[in-house]
Amino acid sequence: MMSNYSVDERYMQQAIGLAKQGCYSTKPNPNVGCVIVKDGQVIGQGFHPRAGQPHAEVFALRQAAEQAQGATAYVTLEPCAHYGRTPPCAEALVKAQVKKVVIACLDPNPLVAGKGIGILKAAGIEVESGICNAEAAALNKGFLKAMATQMPYVRVKIAASLDGRTAMASGESKWITSTVARQDVQHWRAISSAVITGIGTVLADDCQLNVRELADVDLSGVVQPKRVVLDRQGRLPLTAKILQQPETLMVMGPFRQELADLGVVQIAVQPLDQLLKQLVRDYQIYDVLVEAGATLTSAFIQQHLVDEYIHYIAPTLLGHSARAMFQVDLQSLNQQYRLHIQEIAQVGEDIRLNLTPLQE
Amino acid sequence: MMSNYSVDERYMQQAIGLAKQGCYSTKPNPNVGCVIVKDGQVIGQGFHPRAGQPHAEVFALRQAAEQAQGATAYVTLEPCAHYGRTPPCAEALVKAQVKKVVIACLDPNPLVAGKGIGILKAAGIEVESGICNAEAAALNKGFLKAMATQMPYVRVKIAASLDGRTAMASGESKWITSTVARQDVQHWRAISSAVITGIGTVLADDCQLNVRELADVDLSGVVQPKRVVLDRQGRLPLTAKILQQPETLMVMGPFRQELADLGVVQIAVQPLDQLLKQLVRDYQIYDVLVEAGATLTSAFIQQHLVDEYIHYIAPTLLGHSARAMFQVDLQSLNQQYRLHIQEIAQVGEDIRLNLTPLQE
Repeated sequence: MMSNYSVDERYMQQAIGLAKQGCYSTKPNPNVGCVIVKDGQVIGQGFHPRAGQPHAEVFALRQAAEQAQGATAYVTLEPCAHYGRTPPCAEALVKAQVKKVVIACLDPNPLVAGKGIGILKAAGIEVESGICNAEAAALNKGFLKAMATQMPYVRVKIAASLDGRTAMASGESKWITSTVARQDVQHWRAISSAVITGIGTVLADDCQLNVRELADVDLSGVVQPKRVVLDRQGRLPLTAKILQQPETLMVMGPFRQELADLGVVQIAVQPLDQLLKQLVRDYQIYDVLVEAGATLTSAFIQQHLVDEYIHYIAPTLLGHSARAMFQVDLQSLNQQYRLHIQEIAQVGEDIRLNLTPLQE
Repeated sequence: MMSNYSVDERYMQQAIGLAKQGCYSTKPNPNVGCVIVKDGQVIGQGFHPRAGQPHAEVFALRQAAEQAQGATAYVTLEPCAHYGRTPPCAEALVKAQVKKVVIACLDPNPLVAGKGIGILKAAGIEVESGICNAEAAALNKGFLKAMATQMPYVRVKIAASLDGRTAMASGESKWITSTVARQDVQHWRAISSAVITGIGTVLADDCQLNVRELADVDLSGVVQPKRVVLDRQGRLPLTAKILQQPETLMVMGPFRQELADLGVVQIAVQPLDQLLKQLVRDYQIYDVLVEAGATLTSAFIQQHLVDEYIHYIAPTLLGHSARAMFQVDLQSLNQQYRLHIQEIAQVGEDIRLNLTPLQE
């Protein structure tokens, strides 16, 4: 088979493939993959599996052992330069005497940015960066955004009919999308550090918002997202199912002793952008999935807090009295919220569009 | 390159490809292609280009000449058996002494059904049918439906935002979809024998509804669709642009002498299903494209007259006060109009879905 990739790109793609294996389990750490190559042979490979466990480079270097000397290492993210839970990877690469390091993404973390490369170069190691940068950056949208802006990457899940309706006027909505589409949502939950919803959705659906099923994935290895309920009036009933799972529940609302007794993390009522900042700052939540009703979803959209729409369209028409997905009153076309289609996928009987806001 | 097709299927696909070359010009006749093969060599090929011109088999036989003796003919539609504007093709195949005829679709036209095959078999020619039936039937959805049911194949074009809106409350709608999507519409017009709209759309947009641009196609060869305006109150202004093209204009409304003077075909006011029947019966209109506002479009949908939705989705949100694409009041999910996605295409910045009603 012919390939349009250069040799460097092919090894970097392999490293990206490895990094993806950690997509459900490294949070809040980034996904990183590493491939070590010598004389056209892969002699070591690894990925970061979980916070507290070794970084990708360490696994790859262990496998390569003394062969690493004079080899080329492909890493999807700039090797770290700071002593965290593990010693810096840049130093491990120096110690192993690799000849060259090829990097996809530079690390935007102020503790690391450029320092990893500096350590390598100071040791006389050849460094190349930017290979497959876009694909590698896509692995860590939340981490990269949070390090650069102290705001999380916000995905909003919407499931609507062809005519843009999420439920009948009565609230009836089970089920507009197919089972396959609802399973697909679980992937987006599982790559998120938090799922945010409104009290209305909890009261209407008694939802749990945890990850319960992922095709071909052992759930025990998945780091569950924290669940965040926005409950400004303190209406969450103590009988809600969402209180019954071991995964962290956070509630933004007035303080309630009975929730504290159940171990619920309580957050002060504040505007959405402030809440998102707090999630980054205090809880290392970099990827957020909003799964809420039209009111809260529309608020995120109107406040320009959405980075990506995960939009499921069910091929059905529900009529003009059914509930609108976007509860915002616009008067003219120049007020529209214009998006760009990044991806189109058929999921069962439905389709999923991944869209991003168009920069105006 | 490996192929999963049998030899017969490969030649039939070639015949289907030929048939498609007539897609804008044969109306009201069907699209038909023919390939004649002998000793693994294609010795003749043809397609029906235009009503009044020879059928596909005639072109292919002409090219094959005396070599046709003992050959196999692949035809996308059962060869005709009746004397119309041309002598019957079944007899031409007999006369040419082909050995075998492979047919994709049987002809549902009562004047032809089974008779073509009968003539071939009576002459000792081996006949096989049903090869690539679905693909060949897709070439002639209108013709096949009309012959079987006396109703046309009705496509409805819808262009809406992600939240199912076709215009702002003010009526402002230029442009929600992209140029590329609007060009794509021209293909669906060009394969249609009639484009139907309502007087509201004519008054609002002063539309022409003719085919003005097709990529890589010489417009002089396109048989323009007839334009049908539903104007129950006789409101069409004599200054409307739609009156200024040479293509046939039909108006359903009260009789107006001034329209008659302009050569407009006038049709009595009647229910939509009766109108569609009349278009088939009196005007050989088998493929209809409805390009109308939400009211008329919704009427076609509610009366279960739609065979296919040509649904363009522009990636934008217009808000809940913008105009709904489906103006029907439904109370519960069991009243929904459930569809099936047949095709997904990205067209410029937008997507097109082709959908069919789900049989309940």
